[in-house]
Amino acid sequence: MTSLDLTGDVVDLTRTICDIPSVSGDEKALADAVEAALHAYPHLEVLRDGDAVVARTSLGRPARVVIAGHLDTVPIADNLPCVMDGDILRGRGTVDMKAGVAVMLRLAAGLTAPRHDLTFVFYDHEEVAAKLNGLGRLVRNHPEWLAGDFAILGEPSDGTVEGGCQGTIRIKITVPGVAAHAARSWKGSNAIHSAGAVLDVLRAYVPRQPVVDGLRYHEGLNAVKIEGGIAGNVIPDLCTVYVNHRFAPDRDVAGAEAHLREVFAGFEVEVVDAAPGARPGLDQPVAKEFVELVGLPPAPKLGWTDVSRFAALGIPAINFGPGDPLLAHTDGEHVPVPEIRRTLEVLTTWLS
Amino acid sequence: MTSLDLTGDVVDLTRTICDIPSVSGDEKALADAVEAALHAYPHLEVLRDGDAVVARTSLGRPARVVIAGHLDTVPIADNLPCVMDGDILRGRGTVDMKAGVAVMLRLAAGLTAPRHDLTFVFYDHEEVAAKLNGLGRLVRNHPEWLAGDFAILGEPSDGTVEGGCQGTIRIKITVPGVAAHAARSWKGSNAIHSAGAVLDVLRAYVPRQPVVDGLRYHEGLNAVKIEGGIAGNVIPDLCTVYVNHRFAPDRDVAGAEAHLREVFAGFEVEVVDAAPGARPGLDQPVAKEFVELVGLPPAPKLGWTDVSRFAALGIPAINFGPGDPLLAHTDGEHVPVPEIRRTLEVLTTWLS
Repeated sequence: MTSLDLTGDVVDLTRTICDIPSVSGDEKALADAVEAALHAYPHLEVLRDGDAVVARTSLGRPARVVIAGHLDTVPIADNLPCVMDGDILRGRGTVDMKAGVAVMLRLAAGLTAPRHDLTFVFYDHEEVAAKLNGLGRLVRNHPEWLAGDFAILGEPSDGTVEGGCQGTIRIKITVPGVAAHAARSWKGSNAIHSAGAVLDVLRAYVPRQPVVDGLRYHEGLNAVKIEGGIAGNVIPDLCTVYVNHRFAPDRDVAGAEAHLREVFAGFEVEVVDAAPGARPGLDQPVAKEFVELVGLPPAPKLGWTDVSRFAALGIPAINFGPGDPLLAHTDGEHVPVPEIRRTLEVLTTWLS
Repeated sequence: MTSLDLTGDVVDLTRTICDIPSVSGDEKALADAVEAALHAYPHLEVLRDGDAVVARTSLGRPARVVIAGHLDTVPIADNLPCVMDGDILRGRGTVDMKAGVAVMLRLAAGLTAPRHDLTFVFYDHEEVAAKLNGLGRLVRNHPEWLAGDFAILGEPSDGTVEGGCQGTIRIKITVPGVAAHAARSWKGSNAIHSAGAVLDVLRAYVPRQPVVDGLRYHEGLNAVKIEGGIAGNVIPDLCTVYVNHRFAPDRDVAGAEAHLREVFAGFEVEVVDAAPGARPGLDQPVAKEFVELVGLPPAPKLGWTDVSRFAALGIPAINFGPGDPLLAHTDGEHVPVPEIRRTLEVLTTWLS
């Protein structure tokens, strides 16, 4: 097992943990190394569930901050071991999100007497189906491990605070028709043609851009799949359109579904899956203080992230971590070294 | 090998040949029986190519009539052996088209001194991919076997003459987009939404119903397949719509393609496959005479049939056979016995 040095340089630590492969489902080696390293610090209580590791202080502080990050990565694309390229660290996991994990490990080891009590959550299975998500499993198995007053998810946020996240809901719209031989098409009713009315709605739709807790979100309503047709000589009796709606966190899942049922009134609509968004919570004093310290205007998080799992527990949560989120999952993912150092510095200052 | 009695009752003969299974690709047993039975008649020259059998007279008549029918059927659906149900013969192949084949066999054996020289063509692989079609193979291998002045295809036509056939052309319309994460959809361009413009054209299209050689055809323009979408969280960069156009026989394939390129101007259009129609040719004296004898108003053939292969050889061709063409390929296919007898009677009268 690779031994991790939690007191040395955060960039070296990033590199070391990047070079322990941990594609989703294969996080054990890294989780073992993280757990063993944290056990060396008597100010931390270390807990484990599957390949999730939780470390926390119990200093009786009035507030508790939870800092969470996932250990897994998407599959390796011939981009390990890491390569240092000037001031850029390149390789699988660098930006999503082992630089963030390295910062968390350094904070956990170094902050023996933090201003707030701290809980560090390192979890598995973030890059795969939501039902496998390690943070979701902790919510089910040990919600008390996640208790806190404010949460930071260490996902890359380009050096600023990204508040909350938009929700997502996918619906399936079924458009019926009547099959007939294509040589006598007027004896049937073409379901694909009828689905044109669904596309009419999508083309005419103007998404909202509401301001929630001071941040402007940007919704979206898009067909993400369409399928129809039986054979080259048959009028299709069925066309299915899958639509994904991204909705701002001023609306919950029920509100988003009601909106879609209104938009697609008259069509057969079925909800395929949905996940709520999370309000940015930047009106909370602890959040305000943190945003001021970061010193950059906060941005809305448009994609869905695990902050919404904290929101569901009633804990305001933000995204804050090194690197450009748009590089996540790309073969060329990388993170600028100064951003790793700055993230560590901001958090250390805030929590000391 | 079942021995066929070509001089007995045409309904018994229909039943006998229905009970020799001959699903496409498996026509040999029936082709062998047909060939052997025809060899017994010295007024016929019998030829064979694969599982196609051709029998013809050479009496030096000024005109030659070709009568063609296929030996194969679609797969058996627990509907053999045939069952006689009052005046209805039920079972696979009864209507499509062994009743027609039985009529042809009786004519071939019985008309030793016909008014016109006769060529009977029994062929294989009609119910499968066009490139396997036995009549198409004869056109390639032995076009001289098919020479004639007028052709009758014995496909079911509900007791009347169905003239010509409509052509068919399939095109693929490719609608591009720009992929993006669904959480930031405005950074992409949704190909499925853009395909709405293709469906607009289809929904607004008014098909022609032109009169050709006295018969009113009815065209059609239909999407037969649509597909698009990459993943539930990605704006699709491609949507493909397959469109089938059925066109009246006053237009050839090139004309139909030009029409589609005009209708879908601005879209990326690719021709997938096409087959020409066939003019009904009912202005020919020999056809007029036959229609008068049948005594019912002729109808346009809307589906594509092998008459177009004769048309391509410059031979006017019609469909005339017992039974309802809409029953073809159904598990409950059947043919009324009186129609078999009447078809034999009409053709015998005309050709004697």
